[in-house]
Amino acid sequence: MKLALAGIGKIALDQHLPALEASADWDLAATVSRHGRIEGVEAFPRIEAMLEARPEIGAVSLCLPPVPRFEAAQAVLRAGRHLMLEKPPGATLAEVHVLRDLAQAHGVTIFATWHSRMALAVAAAKRWLADRTVQEGRITWREDLRKWHPGQDWILDAGGMGVFDPGINALSILTEILPARVHLKAAELDIPANRQAPIAARLALSHNIAADFDFRQQGPQTWDMEFQTDAGPLALRMGGNVLEIDGRPAGGEASIMGEYPALYARMADLVRRGASDLDLSPMVLVADAFLLGRRTLVEPFDF
Amino acid sequence: MKLALAGIGKIALDQHLPALEASADWDLAATVSRHGRIEGVEAFPRIEAMLEARPEIGAVSLCLPPVPRFEAAQAVLRAGRHLMLEKPPGATLAEVHVLRDLAQAHGVTIFATWHSRMALAVAAAKRWLADRTVQEGRITWREDLRKWHPGQDWILDAGGMGVFDPGINALSILTEILPARVHLKAAELDIPANRQAPIAARLALSHNIAADFDFRQQGPQTWDMEFQTDAGPLALRMGGNVLEIDGRPAGGEASIMGEYPALYARMADLVRRGASDLDLSPMVLVADAFLLGRRTLVEPFDF
Repeated sequence: MKLALAGIGKIALDQHLPALEASADWDLAATVSRHGRIEGVEAFPRIEAMLEARPEIGAVSLCLPPVPRFEAAQAVLRAGRHLMLEKPPGATLAEVHVLRDLAQAHGVTIFATWHSRMALAVAAAKRWLADRTVQEGRITWREDLRKWHPGQDWILDAGGMGVFDPGINALSILTEILPARVHLKAAELDIPANRQAPIAARLALSHNIAADFDFRQQGPQTWDMEFQTDAGPLALRMGGNVLEIDGRPAGGEASIMGEYPALYARMADLVRRGASDLDLSPMVLVADAFLLGRRTLVEPFDF
Repeated sequence: MKLALAGIGKIALDQHLPALEASADWDLAATVSRHGRIEGVEAFPRIEAMLEARPEIGAVSLCLPPVPRFEAAQAVLRAGRHLMLEKPPGATLAEVHVLRDLAQAHGVTIFATWHSRMALAVAAAKRWLADRTVQEGRITWREDLRKWHPGQDWILDAGGMGVFDPGINALSILTEILPARVHLKAAELDIPANRQAPIAARLALSHNIAADFDFRQQGPQTWDMEFQTDAGPLALRMGGNVLEIDGRPAGGEASIMGEYPALYARMADLVRRGASDLDLSPMVLVADAFLLGRRTLVEPFDF
């Protein structure tokens, strides 16, 4: 099946392109980007032009930042093409509801991806937790903003989500592996005095789960989730890629497919079945943290 | 049908009690409140005690503030009783999703009320707009916090929603009368330097609709919505109670039932039909404004 990739930046080149090249389902037939291009693939500067010129391309994958993504997503759906969205699927919840309605009206697939849900050990953790009771949990997601997003001021601006840009990955895993629905009970947000979005956040979630997100980490980075259950402890480390049960490695059930190859395989399956996958629960938790959170101004942050 | 009212404060006494007294559908059979009570009605200090002692009471209406409301709402649903919620239906979106799941699991009605949708002219405005195109709109919701919520610090604290406490009424009307789904494009939030929640907000919504919410109004209060359509102007004034079309009063189609009597009539209808009504779209727009909004600190506010 032919697919176009829109937004040729770092994530497209590092993740989407290798996944598409290795895919038996997808043929990368065009790109859309103001500046970026991929050798040997027809490049369009604007999505409308691509949609008009290449009617045989049935699906479009968007790797644009949340704010320009919405206009492009609407154009794709209105042109009757299947749509795959990088996380988060929009700048607001209501605009994703608009996209859901549009996809339904046009009878096409919409897939809001959460790449961390495809990390190697997530499915195994989900199976193990399915018939156990989580008594408490601790999520630690600490990374260095300067290392991962150098100079990207937008991430700390209004609408940029700040530390929830990585933190939503943890929430996407949490909402996937817990058998019950999670909700937010309280949140503390640390906002640099010269910025709009939180650079750190501490969440109190249901099921006695605490989350500690920090974008100011230096030295070792941490993407860990630890749970106490009625059947002993489970930990997911390295962003969902390493599973420990009872303190011992438990890798036997791990998936062997990488995150983005798994996303494209799922997209192909959804298109073939005429289905959609638009789970907003990670983004709802972020919006709830902004709604309920207590803000503290902290020292200014500069790249 | 027997109903219990929980949270006997100003809104319960001013609005719910008269509506229940005038209702042919409902018999107020018990109250739940730490301090308040109503003469001639059995009073309980805790909801669990009421649910256990009065199994014949099939429905509970909650007028508690958003934060304690969630525990009470869960208790009601788990006891298999129908649930009616004052606006907003929760402190977070995710907790309302939990309530929706619980109501479904227990086979009972859940009704998230938006009283302003029952204002006298809202249904007529909705009918008029149904086959017209809104070209632009302006919402002006300006009231005096000191007059309507004297000394209520919680409303400007984290989770209190600030000026969105009244503003969500405007958004509940907007999402009811517009035939298309509305989404937020940008927001400016004014936060008093000594508070957590916005005291004023300006929203840019889809369909060229601008909203101006301000809690610092003195003198005349304003709750107006004005739209330009392909068939001329429509205005809803006085919080949805007065309709103007083409600049002239158009009251002929107005409802004759007050807001709270209409809510209780709808609740009775939902229970009889075994249906629920849990439209979160006004609250989604508020969460989106907190998520996307640009915050400016403004002068401190004291009651």
